[in-house]
Formats: sequence, structure tokens, C-alpha cells
Amino acid sequence: MAPTISSGLNTPESELESILTIHPTALRRPNAILVQSVNTRYTQDHITATFHNRGATVDVSHGQFTVTPTIQSYEFQTQRTVGKTGLMMIGVGGNNGSTLCATILANRHNITWHTKSGIQHPNYIGSVLRASTVRIGTDGTGKDVHVPISDILPMVHPNDLALGGWDISGVSMDKAMERAKVLDYDLQRQVAPHMALLGKPLPSIYYPDFIAANQEARADNVIAGTDKQAHLEHIRADIRKFREDNSLDRCVVFWTANTERYSNIIPGVNDTADNLLAAIKESHSEVSPSTLFAVAAILEGEPFVNGAPQNTFVPGVIELAERHQSFIGGDDLKSGQTKLKSVLAEFLVNAGIKPLSIASYNHLGNNDGHNLSAEPQFKSKEISKSSVVDDMAKGEHPGPHRGDQNTSTINIFNECEDSLLATPLILDLAILTELLTRIKYRKVSAEIHKQEFAPLYPVLSLLSYMLKAPLVKPGTEVVNSLNRQRNALETFLKACIGLESNTDLLLETRIW
Amino acid sequence: MAPTISSGLNTPESELESILTIHPTALRRPNAILVQSVNTRYTQDHITATFHNRGATVDVSHGQFTVTPTIQSYEFQTQRTVGKTGLMMIGVGGNNGSTLCATILANRHNITWHTKSGIQHPNYIGSVLRASTVRIGTDGTGKDVHVPISDILPMVHPNDLALGGWDISGVSMDKAMERAKVLDYDLQRQVAPHMALLGKPLPSIYYPDFIAANQEARADNVIAGTDKQAHLEHIRADIRKFREDNSLDRCVVFWTANTERYSNIIPGVNDTADNLLAAIKESHSEVSPSTLFAVAAILEGEPFVNGAPQNTFVPGVIELAERHQSFIGGDDLKSGQTKLKSVLAEFLVNAGIKPLSIASYNHLGNNDGHNLSAEPQFKSKEISKSSVVDDMAKGEHPGPHRGDQNTSTINIFNECEDSLLATPLILDLAILTELLTRIKYRKVSAEIHKQEFAPLYPVLSLLSYMLKAPLVKPGTEVVNSLNRQRNALETFLKACIGLESNTDLLLETRIW
Amino acid sequence: MAPTISSGLNTPESELESILTIHPTALRRPNAILVQSVNTRYTQDHITATFHNRGATVDVSHGQFTVTPTIQSYEFQTQRTVGKTGLMMIGVGGNNGSTLCATILANRHNITWHTKSGIQHPNYIGSVLRASTVRIGTDGTGKDVHVPISDILPMVHPNDLALGGWDISGVSMDKAMERAKVLDYDLQRQVAPHMALLGKPLPSIYYPDFIAANQEARADNVIAGTDKQAHLEHIRADIRKFREDNSLDRCVVFWTANTERYSNIIPGVNDTADNLLAAIKESHSEVSPSTLFAVAAILEGEPFVNGAPQNTFVPGVIELAERHQSFIGGDDLKSGQTKLKSVLAEFLVNAGIKPLSIASYNHLGNNDGHNLSAEPQFKSKEISKSSVVDDMAKGEHPGPHRGDQNTSTINIFNECEDSLLATPLILDLAILTELLTRIKYRKVSAEIHKQEFAPLYPVLSLLSYMLKAPLVKPGTEVVNSLNRQRNALETFLKACIGLESNTDLLLETRIW
Amino acid sequence: MAPTISSGLNTPESELESILTIHPTALRRPNAILVQSVNTRYTQDHITATFHNRGATVDVSHGQFTVTPTIQSYEFQTQRTVGKTGLMMIGVGGNNGSTLCATILANRHNITWHTKSGIQHPNYIGSVLRASTVRIGTDGTGKDVHVPISDILPMVHPNDLALGGWDISGVSMDKAMERAKVLDYDLQRQVAPHMALLGKPLPSIYYPDFIAANQEARADNVIAGTDKQAHLEHIRADIRKFREDNSLDRCVVFWTANTERYSNIIPGVNDTADNLLAAIKESHSEVSPSTLFAVAAILEGEPFVNGAPQNTFVPGVIELAERHQSFIGGDDLKSGQTKLKSVLAEFLVNAGIKPLSIASYNHLGNNDGHNLSAEPQFKSKEISKSSVVDDMAKGEHPGPHRGDQNTSTINIFNECEDSLLATPLILDLAILTELLTRIKYRKVSAEIHKQEFAPLYPVLSLLSYMLKAPLVKPGTEVVNSLNRQRNALETFLKACIGLESNTDLLLETRIW
Repeated sequence: MAPTISSGLNTPESELESILTIHPTALRRPNAILVQSVNTRYTQDHITATFHNRGATVDVSHGQFTVTPTIQSYEFQTQRTVGKTGLMMIGVGGNNGSTLCATILANRHNITWHTKSGIQHPNYIGSVLRASTVRIGTDGTGKDVHVPISDILPMVHPNDLALGGWDISGVSMDKAMERAKVLDYDLQRQVAPHMALLGKPLPSIYYPDFIAANQEARADNVIAGTDKQAHLEHIRADIRKFREDNSLDRCVVFWTANTERYSNIIPGVNDTADNLLAAIKESHSEVSPSTLFAVAAILEGEPFVNGAPQNTFVPGVIELAERHQSFIGGDDLKSGQTKLKSVLAEFLVNAGIKPLSIASYNHLGNNDGHNLSAEPQFKSKEISKSSVVDDMAKGEHPGPHRGDQNTSTINIFNECEDSLLATPLILDLAILTELLTRIKYRKVSAEIHKQEFAPLYPVLSLLSYMLKAPLVKPGTEVVNSLNRQRNALETFLKACIGLESNTDLLLETRIW
Repeated sequence: MAPTISSGLNTPESELESILTIHPTALRRPNAILVQSVNTRYTQDHITATFHNRGATVDVSHGQFTVTPTIQSYEFQTQRTVGKTGLMMIGVGGNNGSTLCATILANRHNITWHTKSGIQHPNYIGSVLRASTVRIGTDGTGKDVHVPISDILPMVHPNDLALGGWDISGVSMDKAMERAKVLDYDLQRQVAPHMALLGKPLPSIYYPDFIAANQEARADNVIAGTDKQAHLEHIRADIRKFREDNSLDRCVVFWTANTERYSNIIPGVNDTADNLLAAIKESHSEVSPSTLFAVAAILEGEPFVNGAPQNTFVPGVIELAERHQSFIGGDDLKSGQTKLKSVLAEFLVNAGIKPLSIASYNHLGNNDGHNLSAEPQFKSKEISKSSVVDDMAKGEHPGPHRGDQNTSTINIFNECEDSLLATPLILDLAILTELLTRIKYRKVSAEIHKQEFAPLYPVLSLLSYMLKAPLVKPGTEVVNSLNRQRNALETFLKACIGLESNTDLLLETRIW
Repeated sequence: MAPTISSGLNTPESELESILTIHPTALRRPNAILVQSVNTRYTQDHITATFHNRGATVDVSHGQFTVTPTIQSYEFQTQRTVGKTGLMMIGVGGNNGSTLCATILANRHNITWHTKSGIQHPNYIGSVLRASTVRIGTDGTGKDVHVPISDILPMVHPNDLALGGWDISGVSMDKAMERAKVLDYDLQRQVAPHMALLGKPLPSIYYPDFIAANQEARADNVIAGTDKQAHLEHIRADIRKFREDNSLDRCVVFWTANTERYSNIIPGVNDTADNLLAAIKESHSEVSPSTLFAVAAILEGEPFVNGAPQNTFVPGVIELAERHQSFIGGDDLKSGQTKLKSVLAEFLVNAGIKPLSIASYNHLGNNDGHNLSAEPQFKSKEISKSSVVDDMAKGEHPGPHRGDQNTSTINIFNECEDSLLATPLILDLAILTELLTRIKYRKVSAEIHKQEFAPLYPVLSLLSYMLKAPLVKPGTEVVNSLNRQRNALETFLKACIGLESNTDLLLETRIW
Repeated sequence: MAPTISSGLNTPESELESILTIHPTALRRPNAILVQSVNTRYTQDHITATFHNRGATVDVSHGQFTVTPTIQSYEFQTQRTVGKTGLMMIGVGGNNGSTLCATILANRHNITWHTKSGIQHPNYIGSVLRASTVRIGTDGTGKDVHVPISDILPMVHPNDLALGGWDISGVSMDKAMERAKVLDYDLQRQVAPHMALLGKPLPSIYYPDFIAANQEARADNVIAGTDKQAHLEHIRADIRKFREDNSLDRCVVFWTANTERYSNIIPGVNDTADNLLAAIKESHSEVSPSTLFAVAAILEGEPFVNGAPQNTFVPGVIELAERHQSFIGGDDLKSGQTKLKSVLAEFLVNAGIKPLSIASYNHLGNNDGHNLSAEPQFKSKEISKSSVVDDMAKGEHPGPHRGDQNTSTINIFNECEDSLLATPLILDLAILTELLTRIKYRKVSAEIHKQEFAPLYPVLSLLSYMLKAPLVKPGTEVVNSLNRQRNALETFLKACIGLESNTDLLLETRIW
């Protein structure tokens, strides 16, 4: 009998489609994954899984690479109960903040709206956690089984987030949404009363030196005075009050305000935790608003994420986070173009080609555009962008196959509103951050039962997939490859339930 | 003491750069990798390594996913000696064939040439095997160590390939290069005498029904008659003679001629190996030239790779390859745009976005353009291209965050000559194919020592990374994701020396 | 004293701005232009102007060009009263028809609407006649004076058009607008009651052979039977009734339905007026619906414009129009991309460069896209497009300065809805057509007072500026240059009031 | 009889093709045009033609436009003998200068060269004067007759130009060509000996303050000292010597060196001719090198053209040119993108659309790119570019037909080497400038025979077609429209031989 062949020509269902074909029950009943393995233990409160960290050390001598495989085992313990979670945004009245709030309210109240193309329904497409999936194994027929990332471990649902925050503009949230001009009018119209209930943002910190001059006109809702220590305490009180008012277990503080200028790193001022705290007491001019917010969150034991490119996390902030075992993540939302650039750059490098440049043109449609006109802020933006690709353009590309006449121009035009790209990133970062505060680890050793589980390191580099200029543990290298960032995230989440990561080898398809 | 922080802003050296920073000795002394592990054994003739194939089975019932991890171990045995290898191309006088020959000769004779930009040196940049790298572990300082893919296992060097092949045009190889108008004139000028020594291509098979009408003018070098059995024997004799003349251990036969029309699959004609052999005997009209070449290679025990989109591998060919344990691979070279499309498509799907379409515009600069005008051939092209992306465009993309006004246009303009992109792919496919003929496997079990090592399955799906419409083992699904294709290839090659694949987790950077 | 210099660097106001700075009164009181000249006479009913048609004849012999300037004078007589005008569209329920009706109703009733960007007001921007201007001279300070084209001569105001027409789909006009998905929802919502008053379109002629198969599902509103003579009379009766019901002086009949297939020109069938009328009587299969509509309009003495690419105007139609002195114009709306291509092509030719190709990619957003899939209709489209640019790509471009490595890629992406581009073109064509029916001419000679004024030639080639494949007087050449088309239109309109066209010489700026 | 119709569908030959179909004799025997008209007189030395300058004055009052046609006649007298002409370039050793010299030498010596695509022949395609045409009338069959612009009046042939100039880099011209990396290697190789005969450029003026810092390394060939008066005299002597050595009748001095910074206009320094001459004597710091070169040319009675964007022509220079009746033209070469932008902008405005922005991305491939990095020079570039389009983007574009979702993105990618675009512009500017020095005019009046012919006004605004930021007569407005610029040039040249400009009306095609 002749075999039937399955080439690309007649695949009945591609694997890409199956990625998106989610078992419908998985959407309804998250956390319905049960791993049957000696590596995975379930209790009422925790999921505890063993992970074998495999690697290799390489010794190079006289051109000989001697590779010695290594292995070290760990246990990951995840708290199963998702607490009541809040999201406090700095810049909540801006385009990103108001759009995110309106999106959540539209979903929570299931508001549908008209466009010229028909009726639209709210959803969370765009969220990587909720709309993309992970392969967890094969079913009885050998077919891959995928689940949404958000089903691997218990995570907070976006609809359940308590919303709040600060803004230097005192416009109420419904008017802020209108000003943003991001959402369809018919959606705005219906979600406006719900937005109005959010009231107006809390007064924020406004130091003109750190922000583009064009923001001055907006600044009608600022905390009085110039005493930075008082400002710090004001913000800490805001966080505590929000936590109490909403009975929160966890409150993620998120910078989504305009980009600040770069802070100078000054010995004695912001280089250590103690110096920084002292500098705040003295209202030192080089302490930025975002740094103050970060310090406030750390001291309140709440995680802080920086969605803008400025260097909020001066060395003193990182030391402070270590000291308080409080979590921080950043910098800068990795929206569309940067992701794409990263993917393309990696693709080209994988193909043995060093890109000279990848041009992308962003027709900024929001406040951010204005901000770029102001030089020092622009510098912040430039730095965080350039690190993604420029490090690949250092060498020459001699090319035997490349006379100078052969150019491959890759142009990326992104005409989507920035805020529509940014809001799912903010959501994913907040939800992932909350999860990471519930995961602890310990090394597996003879003495394991005596050993306490410890929280993860304060700098949450696992957030890198959503960030343009990922902050990482001091002394370690930044991974800019989008694929490696995602691979790390998937591997980590699966490790927490005792599953191995994918090798993609599919050995059975290579052998008889 | 304050920690020093390593964010994207001040990374001293990015990981992307290090990918390209190859230990120089590795380039000089390939195969200088020694794995010290209980999993890896070296003998004079072989490298034998144990591989643990980890997976999981998923049982879905009442919305509950029960996942059970699985493991099965194998041994891979690689023959260490690389034999003398030939590359016989069908269409050797075309743009791809003549450019590849000239590139190899320029490298072999180290010919430099002038362009308006200065002096150029020949190299094999563009070859994935030689110009891209794999991480094999970390050095003493914790830094990743990379080696070129071609160093993981012994592979034939491009310079050492014996070159030959067939073409329906009898123009000598130096004139063929001139006709192709691909390489810089000053390179052409110098490499021409070396090309002339290759002489003119062997006469080829020309069935006008299978090929665009515009090829007729070229067809002045064809095997006489219409007896397909005679043609098959003629080709087999050509292969044997080439093998003897060049004292070859291995001869890869490669279709790089024009695209043929799609062959109809007719029961009793090309659906089984026996029927196909009988159909050849009867000179059945539905047996294409490329199928005849494939059958010839299989019967001679030599691997055959199809670099064009037509369905050379009718079911009868695959059964024949299985019967003779002879290797086949295809279809269609995955040149620039397709790769990029695949990467972008996967990126978008990973981001939770279903692409409606990805437009790419290829300003065809060669013979292929003419060919597209002929309808049936065009169909072949269309089919192989569409499978890459279209399977992702089936569903709707409701999008809460996406009113219809938000479009992200990704345009890819590739102005590089097709042949400059195709030649490194042909090289990589030939070299990888030769390697895969030297690798055998067996399952690890209690009875292992009684068990023989078996060759890989005849359909070499591990070549998928370089192919547009990968042929896979009947009954298994095609993997179109470029990342998964590469991951599989890397995992397999590393498994053959006893190394685990990368998880990218870098756990030490996430914990204290 | 030093002169002050006016270079591009410090122009206080550019001439381009002044083009758009319309004297506000001109907008309110059209036709407020009075030409004081011996060449221009005004009566209650007419404006009569003398025009000197200057040219030159060239005799080429032995490489010597002998040029002899020529002059011939004419008088143009324009009827000053604009009659009540109707616009009957074939395909009125389609995207273009419904969008045009809704646009006029929104303007007529001054309906404002919300978008996410704020409140929008209706207007006729996009109409060349109403939104672009013509220079008519200089004011006292030497500054150019511009007026909107629609002010040069009395023209019907779009708001005053009586609206009606036919469609093979019987959906009422408000639902047709909704189906089109072109206009913002909040505008649709408000204009819907007004659209509903237009009722449903008149039943139309449906011959499946002439139209894409996908239209069959829409065809629920067709004139019964297969008797083409009866169909012709039905349409003529429709026109008469519409004229009477709305007390019209003029009724422009406009084809804006889907593209038909190309009609074969068959001797004895559609090659002469008489043959065509006979063929209709016999219900000959090669008489298309659009040809029937054109014949109906001609026989009713009303102008007919073909906004689609098919060859409605078979030779028999043109002869019939000549015989009845009835006006016809076509073919195919020259929307965005074609215009741009034409401009670019002319620019390149003017620059001494022959374009090899200009690529444009139209992401069709409407019904038209479906239609293109049907082969014969696609042919119609192709033919009308290709004539615009391809005639320029015939030669070689040797280029001393152009090695093959220098390419200038011009890519045009037009993401605007086709219907938003098409509706102003339909308006302009209808208004201009009405005007041209009111203009007559006679040659100036010794016997001039004995001579009658004659209407213009039936084929209105002055409409070319808005048409992709302009129909011209038999025996004369098509002018494809957009600039020349516009120049002709401006010159003609100005000539009708006795003004010379611009030379742009501005001699006073070149001399002391 | 049925008429045969000539629509776009079956035009046997388009008018665009005919534009390019030049009567071959015209190419061989320029100036073979003889106008038979009372308006045109030929003598041995001159062509004298009468031109009727028609216009209209408009009086606007109470919304009534009263238009009164006007007419004024002139005589233009053109000297028929083309003298021996030189072209001295400042920056002759740069990319533009060396490429232009090599192009002329390749043409003069008829050097052919190899590329991978075949043999190339030198030519002057790209030159508007030589490669584009003008319609001069219709032949006996009614068909348009075109001649190359360069045939209308006697003009110098590029091959006949004497070449020379200055450069701050003392590299010999053959090495300068090699450094430029613009021309194909095989052309470079052959033209190099001819280039070597040009020797090294004359030492130039180098004031570091006016030029990007990166030029310092090149500056090894500068006129000693800091005495600007001495520098002026040095340059004047260079001009005189070049004129004598080459027996020149005319010597065009052309700035094609790097862009200087903007000069501040300082009362008492450069605001009047006398102040400027005094400032030079005092070596005032605000007198730039290019201004010194311009003054030198004016004082020597030779025309000066500024091909860069800086404000060489400070008010004092213009007054000086007026005083000496010496010709000047500028600023900035209008290469590809600017032209295209201008054409597109005008097209859009003609269509009643105000462009918000036209993006163009220039991947600078030369020295100019470096220069842009230096801020003040960049300002010069910015200013001259912005004036072309930005004046059109001032207003709002309300749009009834334009919801905010409809964007038309026009992207222009120009990958051609800048120098290949610049050199024909330099040629055309030099040749046209020489011609304009031979044309004089007088008003036609009763007293005409007593009146002397006067030279044109010193600021040659007729060069605007080739310039980005055209310098015009003080007090008159800049015309940025490319079409109007060209129309003016054509009208003027035709007027000089007594021909009227085209109205494009083609009246005979509109009437019976």
C-alpha cells in the first residue's frame, strides 16, 4: 500500500491553527490543569514542583572545547489563592491609563458598541497572557494540546482589578477618555458613566525639570510644595488608603505617565539606598517623580513597574528593593515596532546576516509625540530603543554573496494607536507581576527539608517579554531576543507545575 | 555597598553580539568539541550519545486537563569520517546553479574582486550552517559560549564539494554565469576560466508539457527520445559515472531547475512505488522529469533534494524511498521573504494577533519571473507559498482594542537577487543531507545491546528550516514555524553529541 | 539701500497657501465674476466669449523643423440659468451610490456627527469643482487671485441634485448605506431616516453573463423577462417618470454599478447605431446592461456617464449619441492611485526618466474586490488601468548614471475606502456634464452672424480629468497626462468667460 | 458608417510615448528650428522674438470679482553663438564634482564599461535639458511634434565644458572619484587616466566655523591665512587664470561643496553690498566661504550658482549682483525626493486635499550624511526642505468624506546614489545659466527703436525647476510648484523664438 504523504501542500490543519484552537472549557475553568508526576505536589494552598536546571560548562583551551553537562534541581512553590489585586497607575488620566480603565470597564459591564462595520464586543485580545497559548503535551492522537498562558497557574482576571492612580491633570476619568480620542465614539458614550464613577485622579508629583515643558498646561492637580520627603509620604499614604478602601491583598504601582528626562547618577545622592533616602529628605534636585513613586511602593511592600524609558531605577532604588524584598520591573513598554524589530533582528542574525539598520516609522498619534520634541526626554526614548537593535550593527558585513547593490529594505508601518497597543501590555505586566509575588523557590539538596522557600529576586526580569529595555539582576546580561524572553517565561511557568519545556524535536517524526 | 545594575541601557556587550563572536579556533579546527558525559561515547569511527526524549500526554475530560510527563531514551550514532561528496544539480546552468558553482570556485581559489565600494573577498556568509551559531554552554565567567553549527558534528566543507549536473541548455558554465547576470562583473571576469573548466552541463530531460513554454528556446541539450525508462537509466548512468569519475562516497542530487507544473496523483500510475516504476516503463505522460530524477537517485542509493515547489514526491516516490532506505527532502527553497513571513506570522500569533494578511512584493529578477506567467507552474508556486501563512488567516479577529481603523501594515521589499539568497540554501541543504546519511539511532531498552542502529526515516524533515513547503513523514503534521524548525535542528544536532537543548530560563538570573 | 530678498527661506506666504485661501464671498455668491473685456458679452440668458485658439504647424524636412504659428477664433456661449438637475445612478444601492446619497443628505440637512476625535461637519471637500481653485488674475498688489472652479461658470450645487436610480438589489437605501460600512456609525444613525425616504431602488437589468457570479445573491430586484427591447423601454420610462416627478430640466444617468465583462465588438451587432438598435430588438446576447442604459439615456436626450471600466460605449452607442446630439462620457472613475500614478509617470518622463514600473497596492475594501476574482470582469479592470502607465514602459532606460544598482522604489499605499474617493468624482462628473450641455460654440469668421451656435461634440472628453480611461472623439488621441487634462479643463472654463490661460511665466519677476 | 473610437483601451500610440520619440535629426543638428512668423526675426548674430504677456487684473469689491484682461508686449533677443564655456566647481573633489567630471569625460571619450548586466554606454539621460522634450506644434497629420529642450535655443554641449574648481581636499581627481564610490568599478578603471589629467583641485577656502567638524580631516588643500580680502582676491585670480588658460567666453562658478551653516544677517555687515565688501576687508567672522566665492564671481562678471542650502546670498550679495549686472542662482539642488514631494503636494492640492505630511526617507549614502549630524548645518538643510511642503500643511482638513480612519500613506524610497541624481542637475543649471546670460529683452512701445535691450534681472529665478529653495527677485513670491516652474521655463524658451505656450485645450477634439 502506498503511504499518504503529509507535506505543506495538504496539511489538514496546521499547527498554527491549533495554537489558537483552545479547548473551550479551558477558557471557562482556569487552573483546570492537573499534572500527574512525582515532580508535582498539590496542597490546598500551594502547587510545589521540582525543576531540573540543566546546563553545561565549557572549557576552551588550545582550540578544544570541553563541554561538561551540569544539573541542579529546584523546587518552585506557588500560592494557589489569587488575592484581591489593585492597579494604581501614575498618569492614569493619560491616553494609556484612561484607555485601560475604559477597556476593563467595557469588559466588566459587557458593553457592546456600534462601528460602521457592525457591532463590536469587548475582549482582551492583545493580552499575551489571555490570548496566546502554550503547548503542554500531546493528546491520545498525538496532536499538540495548547492552553492559554493564563491557565497554567492561577492569575488575577483583568475584570477583577481595582483601578486607581495619580495624574498631574485633574480632569475626571470620563473626560480623560474623551481627551484621549482613542476609543470609538459609541463605546466612549456608553462607558463614560462608568468612567465618571472613577472620579478624578489623585494629585500627582510635578517637577517641571523632569518633564517636557508642554506638560505644564496639564498640571492642575499636583501635590503642593517642594518637600520631596513630604511627597514620598503623601504617595505612601495614597497607596495605603487605596489598599484599605478596596481591601486589597496586593497593589501593583505602575508608571504610565509621560517620559521623564534621564536622571544623572551622582555618587552620594542616588547610588545607594541610604544615600537615596537621605537625598529625598533633603529634596535633592536629582530625585525624579518616578523614583519617588518607586521608593514609596517599595517601602509599602508593593511591586512597582516602570512603563516608560527613563532610568527610574537608579542604583539606590535597586538596593532598596533588595533590602525590602520588594519587587520592581521595567523599563518601557515594548509595543509593536520594538517587538517586531527584535524578532527581525534575531531572524537575520540566525540567518547569518548582520542587519545594518532596520527602519521603523512611528506616526505618533498622542501626547508622546509632543514630549519627544523636548530634548532630554527624547534622549531617554532614544537610549531605550537603540539598545534593542544597535548592538547588532557594530560589525562589518563583508558578504561574498553581497555586492553593494543588494539591499533588503524592511519597512514597518504601524498605524495603530499607541494606546491600543500599550494597554494589553500594562495588563499583562500587572497580572504577571502579581503572580510572581506568589512564587517562591528553594534548591534541592540533602538538607532540603530544613530549607525555607525564598521569594524570587526583586528585579523581575521574567517581565522582559513585555519590556523594551529590560531591567535585570545586577551583574547579569540583558536578553533582548524576543524568542528567548518568551521561551524563558514559558519554561518558568511550566516548571512551576512540573512540566518540561519543549524541544520541538518531535523525534518520532524523524525516525521509522 | 550599592549594586551595579545592568539594564538594557548600559549592557557592556549584548548577547546578540556574542552570538557572532565565535572563538576563532573553532573556525580553524572544526569538530574540536569534546563532551565529557556519561551520555557521550567517542570511538575512532563514531560519536554515540544518549538522548532522553521528554514529553507529556494530556487527557482532557470534563474540562480537566490531566498531564502525565513521559520519557523515552535513544542513542544516536554519527559516523565521524566525512566522505568525498558530490553535488549534482538539475538545472546547473541556471541562475542558482551557475551562481553556486562560481561562489564555490571563488572561495576555493580565493578570488578577490573590485566593486565601486572597494575590494571584496569571497566567503560563505549566508550559509546558516557556517555563519550562524549555537550555544553549547557557559564559560567560567558565566558567559554563553557559541560555536558555528557546522562545528557541532563533522560536515563536508563547501570548498570540497565535487560539482556537476544537468541542464536542458547546453551553454558552457562560464557563459551560463554571464547569462545569469548575478555576480559582479569583476568577479565574473576572474572566475570565468575556472567555470569554463566545468564544461557544459550533461543533457537533461525535457518534457515540454511540464515546463513553461518560454523554456523551449533554451532546450538545446536534451536527452533524445521519449522513452522514460531509457531516460531513467540514462540519468542513473550519469550519477554512477560522476561518482566514479570523482571517487565519491556520497552524491547529493538536487533539483534547482525551473518549476514544473503540478503532477496529478493518479491511482495506478504514481500512487505506489510499483505503479510508478511500471508507469515509467510505459512512459506514462504524468511522470515528470523531476520525479524521474528522484527515482534515479533513490535507485542509486543517493539522496535527492527538491528545491522547487512542484510535487516531485508523488506517493510512489516516497514508498520507493522507504523501500530502498534512500533519503529525500523538499520542497522549494525557503528564501528571504518566506522566512520573514513565517517569522512575522509566528510573532503575531505569539502576540495573540491573527494576521489577516502579510503582503510581500518580490520583484523577480530572473527566469523564475517568466515562468510564473505560465499558469500551471504558477499554481505550483502559489500552493507552496500559501501554506506558510494562509492557515493563520482563517478565523476572525474581533479585537476589543481594535476598531477597524487600526491597521498595521508590514511591507517587505526584497531587492536582493534571488540567486544570492538561494545559493547558500542549496549549500546548506546539500551539506546537511550528507550529514544525516551518516547518523543512525536505536531505542534504549533492556535489550539495547542486541539492537541494531537504524538509519533515519527517508523523508528528511529536519531540512525544514531551509524549505518553504517541508515534506514530512506521512501521517505527521508539518511544522511551519521557523523558530520551531530551527529549534528542532539545533536540538537534534546537540543531542547527537549528548547535549541538552536550551530552555533560555537562565534561572540564576531570576533568583537570589 | 539693501534690497530685501524673498527666497524660499522666508516667504511670508507661499503661493500654495493662497491657492487655498478663497475669498470668502466667492463661496457664498457663486458666479460673482464679471469680465470687462471686448471678448466677453453678458446677456440675461448667456455669457458669450471670444477665444483665440493659438497653435503651430510644424514641417519637418531634412532635419529642419519649420514652425508656423496659427490662430483661429471661436465664440463660446454658456446658458446662465442652471436648470433643476437629477442624478440617476445605476447601482444606486451599492457602496458608491449609497455613500453619495448619504453625503448629499448629510450636507443638505447639515447633519453633524461624533467620532472619537470630536464632532464632524459635512462638506464637499474632495470635490475638485468645489474644493480646488483656479487663478483668474492678480489683485492690486500683484498677488494672485483664485476662485473655486465652481465659481467660474454657473453650476448646479450638489445639495440641489434630485437623487434616484436602479439597483439589482432591492434593499432600501438606509439599509444599503448600512451594508456599505463606509460612513461613521454616528453619521449613519442620523442620516438613516433621510435615506429611508429615498425608498428602495428601481428594479434594474440583470444579465448574469455580464457580471460576476457573486452578484447573483444580491439580484432580487430585477426587471422581469429577457426581452432587451422591453428592458430598454422600461428604462426609458423610468427616466421620463423621474424627470416628471421631480420637474427636471436635466437628468444625468450614471453607471456606478459593478464592472461588467468586456463586450465583444461584433460586425452587424454593435458596430453601428442601426445594427445596435436592431440587436436590442432581437435581444442579442452581446448587448450588455450598461449599453442598454446608455442607449436609453441617449434616446431620452439625457447625458450618460460610465463610471466603470467596461466598454459600454461600443461603436454603435457613439454613433447613436452623434445622431441624437446627446452627450456621453467615460470610462472608469479615476480614483486616487491612478491619478497619483499618472502624476508620477508624467513627472518622471518630464525629468527625462522612463519608469520601468510603478507599483501600487490597493487593499480593496468593497464589493469590487469580490468582483475582481471573476476573470472576465477583471480583464475590464486591467485594461483600463494599464493604459495609464504601461505606455511609458516600452523603451529601454540605458542610463549613464544608472548602473543596475540604482532603483527608486515608489510605493503608494492607499488605505482610504474606495467609496470615499469615488463619491466626489461622481459628483464632479455629474455637475460638469450638466454644465457642458449648456455650452455652445461657433467659429469666428466673416460670416459669423449668420452662423448658429452648435453644441459640443457628444463625447465629453473634457471629463478626462476624473476618468481613468477617457473616452475621446474617434480619430483623436487620448491625453493621459493629469496635468494636461486639468490644464485643458481650466483653459476651457476660463475661455467661456473670455480669460486667457496661465503661462506661469511671471515675466515681471525675471526682468528689472 | 460607424465611427471608430479611440479610447484609452486601444490607443495605438499614447502621447506619452511620443514625448519620448524625438525626431532623430533633432538630436544630431540642434537649433534646426525655424519659426516663420512676423513675431520672429533671425540675423546672423541674434534671434529676436515678440512676446505678448497676457494677464488680468482683478478688483474685488462686495464679493464681486471684476476681471480686466491686460496685455504688454516684449522683445527677447538671444545671441546665437555659444561661447567657450567653463564650469568651476567649489568642492570639485567631492562626490558630486568628481562624478560629474567623470561622466563628462566618459561621454567625451565615449568610454563603455561592463557591469554584471552587460555593456553600458555613457549618455546624458537624467539631464532635463537633453533628455526631456517640449511640444512645438503639430505635424501635417495633427500629431504633436516634440523637440528636446536643448534644441529650442543654442546651448552649450556638456562635452564642451572646460572643467575645473577648488576643494579643501587635495586628493587628485582620479583618487577623488575612487573615494566617492559612486560609479561602477569598470567605468572608474577606464576613466581614471582621464581624470588624472585634471590633476588636483585648486586650494579652497576653509573656515572651520562654517562647516561640519568631520570635514577637518579632509582639509589639506586650503588657501593659507585668515585674511578674507586676500582670499577673495585669490579666488578672483583663480577665475581669471582659468578663463585665460581655457580661452573662455563664459565661466560658471558653482558651489557643490558641503553645506555650510546658516549665516546670521547682521546690519552693517552683510546687509548691503558696501557693508559686505567692508566686512570682507575686515575679515569679519560672519562672512562665509560660499559668500566669498559668490562675491568673487560677481566681481569677475561671471555667474554664480549655489547648489547647497545655506544662505550664501545674504542681502549684500544680491545688491552687489544688481550693481554689477552679474547673474546669481540658487539655492540647493532639487534632487529626486524634493521634486517628487513637490509634485505630490501640488497634485493633492489640485485634488482639493491638503496633505498633512509627506514622509520621505533618504538613506544618505555620502558625505552629506555625516554633515547632517552637525547641528547648524542640519538647520540649513531643514529650512530649505521644509519650505517646499510645509506651507501646505498649515490648515485643517475637515473632510466630510474623511473620517479619521482614512489615511493615504505615500512613501517614497529613493535608493539611488545622491550623486547620480545631483550631477545632471548641476549640468542643467550650468548650461541654462550660460544661456540666460545671452538673452536680453525690451518692452514694445511706440519708442521701441530708441530702446536698448537689457539683460535679465540678476537673480535667475528661471532656474527654479532644478532648485529646492529657489532664490527669486526681492519682493516677489517664490513659486514652489514644480509644474509651474517647468511651465515658466518652457514658456520663456519658446517665447524667445516667438512661439506661444500650450493651453492643452485641443479644442478640435471637443467640438464637431
